[in-house]
Amino acid sequence: MINGFFNPKSIAVIGASRTPGKVGYDILKNTVQYGYQGAVYPINPNASEILGLKCYPSLLDVPDEIDLAVVVVPPQKVCEVIEQCGTKKIDSAIIITAGFRESGLEGTKLENSLIKKAKESGVRFIGPNCLGIIDTHSRVNASFAAGMPKKGSIGFFSQSGALCLAVLDRALSEDIGFSKFISMGNKADVSDTDIMIALAEDDNTKVILGYIEGLTDGRKFIEAASKVSKKKPLIILKSGTTISGAKAASSHTGALAGRETSFDSAFKQSGIIQAHTMGELFNYALAFSNQHLPAGPNVAIITNSGGPGIIAADACDRSRLQLVPLHKETIDELRSFLPSVASFYNPIDILGDAGADRYEKTLNMVLKDEKINGVIVLLTPTAVVNVEATAGAIGNIANLVDKPILASFMGKKSVESGSKILMKYNVPNYSYPEEAVYALNEMYRYHFWINRPAKTFPHFKGLKEKASNIFKEVMEKKREHLTDPEIHEVLKAYGFLQPKSLLARTSEEAVAASKGIGYPVVMKIVSPQIVHKSDVGGVKTNLTSKKDVENAFFDITTRIKQIMPTVNIYGVMIQEMIQGGKEIIIGITKDPQFGHMIMFGLGGIYVEVLKDVSFRVTPLSQEDAHEMIREIRTFPLLRGVRGEAEADVEAIEKSLLILSQLALDFPQIIEADINPLLVKKRGEGMVAVDARFTIGGE
Amino acid sequence: MINGFFNPKSIAVIGASRTPGKVGYDILKNTVQYGYQGAVYPINPNASEILGLKCYPSLLDVPDEIDLAVVVVPPQKVCEVIEQCGTKKIDSAIIITAGFRESGLEGTKLENSLIKKAKESGVRFIGPNCLGIIDTHSRVNASFAAGMPKKGSIGFFSQSGALCLAVLDRALSEDIGFSKFISMGNKADVSDTDIMIALAEDDNTKVILGYIEGLTDGRKFIEAASKVSKKKPLIILKSGTTISGAKAASSHTGALAGRETSFDSAFKQSGIIQAHTMGELFNYALAFSNQHLPAGPNVAIITNSGGPGIIAADACDRSRLQLVPLHKETIDELRSFLPSVASFYNPIDILGDAGADRYEKTLNMVLKDEKINGVIVLLTPTAVVNVEATAGAIGNIANLVDKPILASFMGKKSVESGSKILMKYNVPNYSYPEEAVYALNEMYRYHFWINRPAKTFPHFKGLKEKASNIFKEVMEKKREHLTDPEIHEVLKAYGFLQPKSLLARTSEEAVAASKGIGYPVVMKIVSPQIVHKSDVGGVKTNLTSKKDVENAFFDITTRIKQIMPTVNIYGVMIQEMIQGGKEIIIGITKDPQFGHMIMFGLGGIYVEVLKDVSFRVTPLSQEDAHEMIREIRTFPLLRGVRGEAEADVEAIEKSLLILSQLALDFPQIIEADINPLLVKKRGEGMVAVDARFTIGGE
Repeated sequence: MINGFFNPKSIAVIGASRTPGKVGYDILKNTVQYGYQGAVYPINPNASEILGLKCYPSLLDVPDEIDLAVVVVPPQKVCEVIEQCGTKKIDSAIIITAGFRESGLEGTKLENSLIKKAKESGVRFIGPNCLGIIDTHSRVNASFAAGMPKKGSIGFFSQSGALCLAVLDRALSEDIGFSKFISMGNKADVSDTDIMIALAEDDNTKVILGYIEGLTDGRKFIEAASKVSKKKPLIILKSGTTISGAKAASSHTGALAGRETSFDSAFKQSGIIQAHTMGELFNYALAFSNQHLPAGPNVAIITNSGGPGIIAADACDRSRLQLVPLHKETIDELRSFLPSVASFYNPIDILGDAGADRYEKTLNMVLKDEKINGVIVLLTPTAVVNVEATAGAIGNIANLVDKPILASFMGKKSVESGSKILMKYNVPNYSYPEEAVYALNEMYRYHFWINRPAKTFPHFKGLKEKASNIFKEVMEKKREHLTDPEIHEVLKAYGFLQPKSLLARTSEEAVAASKGIGYPVVMKIVSPQIVHKSDVGGVKTNLTSKKDVENAFFDITTRIKQIMPTVNIYGVMIQEMIQGGKEIIIGITKDPQFGHMIMFGLGGIYVEVLKDVSFRVTPLSQEDAHEMIREIRTFPLLRGVRGEAEADVEAIEKSLLILSQLALDFPQIIEADINPLLVKKRGEGMVAVDARFTIGGE
Repeated sequence: MINGFFNPKSIAVIGASRTPGKVGYDILKNTVQYGYQGAVYPINPNASEILGLKCYPSLLDVPDEIDLAVVVVPPQKVCEVIEQCGTKKIDSAIIITAGFRESGLEGTKLENSLIKKAKESGVRFIGPNCLGIIDTHSRVNASFAAGMPKKGSIGFFSQSGALCLAVLDRALSEDIGFSKFISMGNKADVSDTDIMIALAEDDNTKVILGYIEGLTDGRKFIEAASKVSKKKPLIILKSGTTISGAKAASSHTGALAGRETSFDSAFKQSGIIQAHTMGELFNYALAFSNQHLPAGPNVAIITNSGGPGIIAADACDRSRLQLVPLHKETIDELRSFLPSVASFYNPIDILGDAGADRYEKTLNMVLKDEKINGVIVLLTPTAVVNVEATAGAIGNIANLVDKPILASFMGKKSVESGSKILMKYNVPNYSYPEEAVYALNEMYRYHFWINRPAKTFPHFKGLKEKASNIFKEVMEKKREHLTDPEIHEVLKAYGFLQPKSLLARTSEEAVAASKGIGYPVVMKIVSPQIVHKSDVGGVKTNLTSKKDVENAFFDITTRIKQIMPTVNIYGVMIQEMIQGGKEIIIGITKDPQFGHMIMFGLGGIYVEVLKDVSFRVTPLSQEDAHEMIREIRTFPLLRGVRGEAEADVEAIEKSLLILSQLALDFPQIIEADINPLLVKKRGEGMVAVDARFTIGGE
């Protein structure tokens, strides 16, 4: 598919204009002025020639084959053009035209027709409402952007055309190379996932950069991203995640914005490098596209002044990087040529009178130290420093080693020439030391990600069958919630231990059941209409005698019948009262972007007050389960504090995997909680004391 | 004091050099080349004239009065020069020379002699080991920096000369105005506090900017900062706070680095605006020095593209700013001239084809909306936008209103000219929308700070007297810890309710005491050598009978005597067992930078595992106590969750204030914990169940 867009043998611009300043003119001009070697056909019924190219009244009048159509006609005419593309066997189109879904109801209808027409005509399209695309290698510039970046290895796709412009402007100003620029527009056909995969397969692209506001199929995106991120760094800025942001997002492109936590979890799970600001997006891209990954966390900082060294050291401490001491041999060698008052520890302060020569020798020495995985070079514009010579020396060294070198030449005018030289040698330069540290930190994290063993997805056999009938029945009866006995069956089918329990319809049955189970017991109301049983006083705990049970039965059935006369009370459940163990909560939620996600947290106030929970998109891998347990702040409580025994963390891991499978087995689950799930000591498993299931249309 | 440094009638440069490139030459040149009107005297025994100025062999040979001495002689000669300053009645000196405390033991000795000599000679000095100072208004440039920034309102002091250079370079490149630049060096005499106060009193300085690695007297600094911050924004970047950073700091300037939490608390408490990176330091300075403070949190965003608007909206949601909808009247007026597909909600998207005119009209309209307290204007470099005209229009409006306007013209080369125009009109421009949002957020927070009522510091009378004897006695006996009965007396003196308790030396006394107090009781060992009583099995709870008490007494006394034969056991304390209430912990710690600090947290795992605590420097104000309670994540637990009653938060507030007074009353306290302190329901107070006090030399 992608070849048609990025490597077309010929391009037609439908809606090409003779008037400079109009989009139809700018695009045509861009297609011809940057060295594209294929044929270009302007289509305009009112012109015979534009920019020296023969003009055709319609696509169908072009005698030759066309690979790519760029559409700039008014929105009402787009469908017709797409139909003509089909006739002409053009399978790729870029629809620049705006006035579709982003502009309201009418536009949405138009966009739906467009999608239908394109499908019928066998045409894939990017847009509508986009800026176009650029490929610096095939020299295709099918956009109305004001410029063409130099050839490079960063592939950038963006839901916002404005971001394309801003990034392009900076790329042009700083001579940063890009491989491809893709303005995605409304993503009515070609999706983020399609483009991400295309960039992953593109030999000219080393780093994939993306800006998204919403995803059309989050699950597909995350699945693809998990694979892509193992091949190439995938750096994404997601906006519209917070409340105000989400409001702005839906008024902008109509995309449904996901909640911040689900995106954070999904990105983490799939190895996406998340940029939190536009600055980070750029900073990370520069590091990843220019430098080698560090093989470990150990970084050395070389500086000609103390303050910036300390600032960088602080940033290291807030990251995963380690400022390790150098080998004794390295220090000895440094001592042989550095002034005695230099600092030989890390940060290595080579003093304010350091010239290029001292930088060069120090950097060479430090790189030889096998403990060091990467170096950050800081430079303050002192009177004696030779910025250009130092930049050249660093650049020369950087090209000979496979350890990453990042620079922060601080200040502005005095260091600009140095920054340009560094860039020529592919050494990224940052305005402030912290930026260099955080960029290197992301590189280290990514190194760690690609070197992890492949994830394992355990499958538990023979579970689904036993629960299928229950879900089927509840669906047929159009009930939203499972009753306690149904939940009991489902949990049993999936191997969750539960307290002994018996259904009782009368006071006598309740007493008999209690005796059978053994005091103390818990009594819970059973009613298909009551989900939050505690809230209506439908749960009584610690019943220790026949009398307790009789009173409780009377209270629950009579009182609830009085306050809620319309509910059906099937009876009460008598349950063994489980003592000891740690309360945890595990659950399933359905995210609008990613579908089923699994949640984990400690129960009670930890989830309610501290909201100390972790999420993962299903299906969960063994590794996801392992990580999400350890991700919460209260994890040490499971390890055991104040002399308590360690909780059965392995059992929790397994339960999360099983819950993931349950979610996959029954897509109709909208929400489920097992809460509390009591975890016992290591090796002793867990007991599911209570649970809720909400289900709905597939 | 400060006039001598910044407004001297004459300057002597001791160690002036004839050789360009030498520091002694650069400084002399700087003193004369930027329009300084006073007399300048180079001092150099080997020259008769430098840069056309008559040279003197020594300070004492100058026939005229001198206000300021700039010292560039080798370190061994500095003391002599300072002595001459005294003879010559020069009361202000800037010591540029390095080779003092920062260079090791010998240097430290030299610095100590220098301090002594300066005191004897009546000379105040900045440095040593500094870059010098600049005053753009009096035109004094007594530094070896390569340039002089334009006149402006930012006063900058920095422990790092390198940071001065980097900031100066950016100031020169972007034409940012400064009032004063002060490189503090080793701060052997003139301190951060001195300079901060001087800048607060300086009419030319509107915003105070500082970089510090460590403070010599943190308490004094914080006290002064609390006052200064009410007059002028005080923006500080503190580095060397984390572990690696602190290591680098002490090898750099020998300053003791404080812990990050204590700095965070102290800064918050005193209204300091904390910059966390160099970028933030700059971004905040630009906003505060150029724009009015917003009178409230409501911000409007005007943008010519959706994506950046969403990014800005996300940033607002992460800040305290509010993206409120505009008044209906405003929206109606906007509709009268904006295209119908524009977005009239906030962010206000005036579309990619917006020209300067549309920006101008929209901005005017939005500023008239009384709901809006400030505006952020975003611009993407589209083909049709006129960057300069738009910048001019925004600038013109900004000069007429008292609401803050910040801009983010995104991209680089295309918007550079616009950025310069904005700067001319005092509208700060940021590369990315998030930076503008976070800068405005700090301005709002500062507005909030200066408009708070003055803090109140309650004093509780007659408490100290009753406890003085105990502390006196323990100090005399050189004991480090207070015993339980002593702690009991101290807490009683300060009004803390405690469980009924009686000291018992024998099993019989213990039984009698238990009967008197009423079962159940708690028994605790009393020994001056045992501080962590639980750890040695010295605490028995829930003793419900005579037999329990006898067994416990035997167990505690006999067993502990066996395992720790050398400790003195005074007996046991029999205590009422308090049931119910919420465990909290309050405490005193002594911070190396700030002295006594008060800590607050929920007890047990909340403090141990979650480390969910807050700190404030003593003396605590009523407001500090109020805030620090609400600052912890688990505060909702005190408000009552799951139907629990609200805890007596007022009582906690009072207890923190009393603890603050206790710390002030007895400076010899090194550490104290009241843990657990059981808080009952609202209005029912609290009970101090256990406590520890560690004391030491003043």
